[in-house]
Amino acid sequence: METNAHFARKDILGLEDLSAEEILTVLDVARSFREVSEREVKKVPTLRGQTVINLFYEPSTRTRTSFELAAKRLSADVVNFTVSESSAVKGETLIDTARNIESMHSDIIVVRHPVSGAPQLLARAVKSSVINAGDGAHEHPSQGLLDLFTIKEHKGKFEGIKVLIVGDISHSRVARSDIYGMTKLGIEVTVCGPPTFIPVEIGKMGVRVTCDFDEALAETDVIMMLRIQKERQHGGLYPSVKEYARFFGLNRDRLSRAKSDVLIMHPGPVNRGVEISPEIADCTQSLILEQVSNGVAVRMALLYLLSRGAYGKAAH
Amino acid sequence: METNAHFARKDILGLEDLSAEEILTVLDVARSFREVSEREVKKVPTLRGQTVINLFYEPSTRTRTSFELAAKRLSADVVNFTVSESSAVKGETLIDTARNIESMHSDIIVVRHPVSGAPQLLARAVKSSVINAGDGAHEHPSQGLLDLFTIKEHKGKFEGIKVLIVGDISHSRVARSDIYGMTKLGIEVTVCGPPTFIPVEIGKMGVRVTCDFDEALAETDVIMMLRIQKERQHGGLYPSVKEYARFFGLNRDRLSRAKSDVLIMHPGPVNRGVEISPEIADCTQSLILEQVSNGVAVRMALLYLLSRGAYGKAAH
Amino acid sequence: METNAHFARKDILGLEDLSAEEILTVLDVARSFREVSEREVKKVPTLRGQTVINLFYEPSTRTRTSFELAAKRLSADVVNFTVSESSAVKGETLIDTARNIESMHSDIIVVRHPVSGAPQLLARAVKSSVINAGDGAHEHPSQGLLDLFTIKEHKGKFEGIKVLIVGDISHSRVARSDIYGMTKLGIEVTVCGPPTFIPVEIGKMGVRVTCDFDEALAETDVIMMLRIQKERQHGGLYPSVKEYARFFGLNRDRLSRAKSDVLIMHPGPVNRGVEISPEIADCTQSLILEQVSNGVAVRMALLYLLSRGAYGKAAH
Repeated sequence: METNAHFARKDILGLEDLSAEEILTVLDVARSFREVSEREVKKVPTLRGQTVINLFYEPSTRTRTSFELAAKRLSADVVNFTVSESSAVKGETLIDTARNIESMHSDIIVVRHPVSGAPQLLARAVKSSVINAGDGAHEHPSQGLLDLFTIKEHKGKFEGIKVLIVGDISHSRVARSDIYGMTKLGIEVTVCGPPTFIPVEIGKMGVRVTCDFDEALAETDVIMMLRIQKERQHGGLYPSVKEYARFFGLNRDRLSRAKSDVLIMHPGPVNRGVEISPEIADCTQSLILEQVSNGVAVRMALLYLLSRGAYGKAAH
Repeated sequence: METNAHFARKDILGLEDLSAEEILTVLDVARSFREVSEREVKKVPTLRGQTVINLFYEPSTRTRTSFELAAKRLSADVVNFTVSESSAVKGETLIDTARNIESMHSDIIVVRHPVSGAPQLLARAVKSSVINAGDGAHEHPSQGLLDLFTIKEHKGKFEGIKVLIVGDISHSRVARSDIYGMTKLGIEVTVCGPPTFIPVEIGKMGVRVTCDFDEALAETDVIMMLRIQKERQHGGLYPSVKEYARFFGLNRDRLSRAKSDVLIMHPGPVNRGVEISPEIADCTQSLILEQVSNGVAVRMALLYLLSRGAYGKAAH
Repeated sequence: METNAHFARKDILGLEDLSAEEILTVLDVARSFREVSEREVKKVPTLRGQTVINLFYEPSTRTRTSFELAAKRLSADVVNFTVSESSAVKGETLIDTARNIESMHSDIIVVRHPVSGAPQLLARAVKSSVINAGDGAHEHPSQGLLDLFTIKEHKGKFEGIKVLIVGDISHSRVARSDIYGMTKLGIEVTVCGPPTFIPVEIGKMGVRVTCDFDEALAETDVIMMLRIQKERQHGGLYPSVKEYARFFGLNRDRLSRAKSDVLIMHPGPVNRGVEISPEIADCTQSLILEQVSNGVAVRMALLYLLSRGAYGKAAH
């Protein structure tokens, strides 16, 4: 599983930081790892004796499981270190917790935190490699990378591909990571949602903005639907779930106006009948489950590349 | 650890489905695996590189630990995926969760769910093998199998053995799995409890019914005491814990009326002083802890047989 | 990783029980294991196929993680068995739970429990080795041992070393284990804190008592600061956090009155600005993170020595 990939980073904090070349390296390595999960014996000795800590300040069974499986299939030792909101409030600081973990000789710390920027803070405080597994409304780089991986597998290229991201752009760390990564690779990104869900300065990220889903749909190659947080309704950000589904949900009727080979993506978990109708979530053009599969491969690639980086540093 | 056992199932959903021959195959394989846990090095490479997911929608440290140890002793990678009641309510559907897990290339999903029939639904939705680790008041097949295994070890046969199951038959998935398995193997089953705890049509399952514990006791070879849910008292299903213990609890006085070699079983956890008195739980005829030991062996057998089944399918 | 160390115990329940010679054996073995965590491949096959259960009745991510990493680096199978307070109340007894775990063929049970003496009770009930990972206000022997290990690494000896333990001595299991271990090895221990935090008969443990931090500081080689439980303030045991920090907190001003080579220790987690000021927690004399590192090595040593003991017993 050796590659000649050049990758000298200590941490993966966001796609804003990564160059197009680095992103392509991750995707190349991920492709070579994807095959491991398809074997009968889904295990390689690559990270044997390395210690990966899943440091989660938010509950997230899905992402944690994906990283845990990625680490185990590389033969690393993984420990889940979950900090509940209540204990974080009265407990020690994030940096003290991270330095404690590092003192147990961790190699890679995978961190999810409700505060934007927390992984950056942590990465500066520890020598271990840090992977941001989602920080506030900031970034979720492994999700952005698996989305890119999935698009590449189906379209064979990024340049000129048209992606439409629909939903609550303002609160979505997935959208931000997607936009950073996609625009760097030449994808043309349009974002769509009710005005309350579109950040005022989003245009500066190099994307087109529209509130008219149907108009934007016509020339799109990939539709990326975002999960709607039902809780936000109480904040008055959208009138009702039914209203939202009508204007911004993807259903059969709306899909009939898109290109016949349009691809449908969603970071999950899906609210069936809200942002996406059940028959569309399960249709042949839906890549939702393929995204999940590719997530394990991309996370294996990140763990592998950072461990190589760590070796590099040790040799200095 | 190869056996010539014929076993072609994808899933283990309940003992209602299994034939007598299939049950005997599981018990045979379990016997060969029991020895692994008695070694100094309790580990065989049988399932190396296979992925087992414990998908638990109810808290259950005991059963989860038994499956986790069984998988680890077979060298499988195990991930615990626990879904709390609150997150299940607002979250994605059971099938979406299962398909997500399967997309990470799981081989076997062990599922516990408060709703009867949930594992069946799940088994139809995924290609991974599914083991029902308890669904509502329906079945708990690995418990039923370990009970059969324990009886076989002590009695050497099933045909003509008389088992008395005492307690809340209506709400017990253990009782149902026991009854399905035992009656298929020629065991004569009697169930006993207050009328509010006996399902009206239980006779159709091929068991005898009685409300008189003492009368039934006399000719019994094995007494299976069920855990009483103290919470149910508030529903008016039984008058008081003290009353229950008097009429349906197993104590020294009552045991003196049974055969001298009667065996005592209980699926645990035990309510000492309620359905069973402390000295009886700990007496030499009590097989309660042996049941727990045998549980690991039976679960190793199930994991092994399903993984063989999966290979079989792959070869089609 | 073989040693000639003589160590014939089944359990590690507290430093009160251990002889000076036994303590020194643990520290010697720990030194040889410390190097494992500093390798690129942090793993030895020493406990392959052994089963370690972390049985935690109190939430403790830090100690649990340290034991989990220690076991994994020795190649043992580890299962976390966490019992929440609510389920312990309505559930089975501690001994029934432990016997159930043992019936699954555990080799070592690491137990944390809010009740002083619970691990002792458990050790008598099971054949598995038991390690006390903290019981009520009684003992926390692996913490005491790692503190001794850390002092030895820096001072090269115990005899005549002066240690000052500051804080809530009454409620601290760390202080008790430290005092038992230190006095056995010839360390001169002084305890210091507000009178409400000093047990009346503490002098019988062979320590000097003072309420004057500044006076005691002058001739101390090692200052051991204890975590202050902010919750206890409501019990009226100390007037206010600010007041406490003023009289019993370690800050730069106070430290200037100590020996220039005084060492600073703290079992963590640290309340920055309460019992210790941030700049002192992070200064070059602070060994706080080194204690955490040494904790993994000491726990590897305990797991290893108990597994050897178990072999010894098996050979009887």
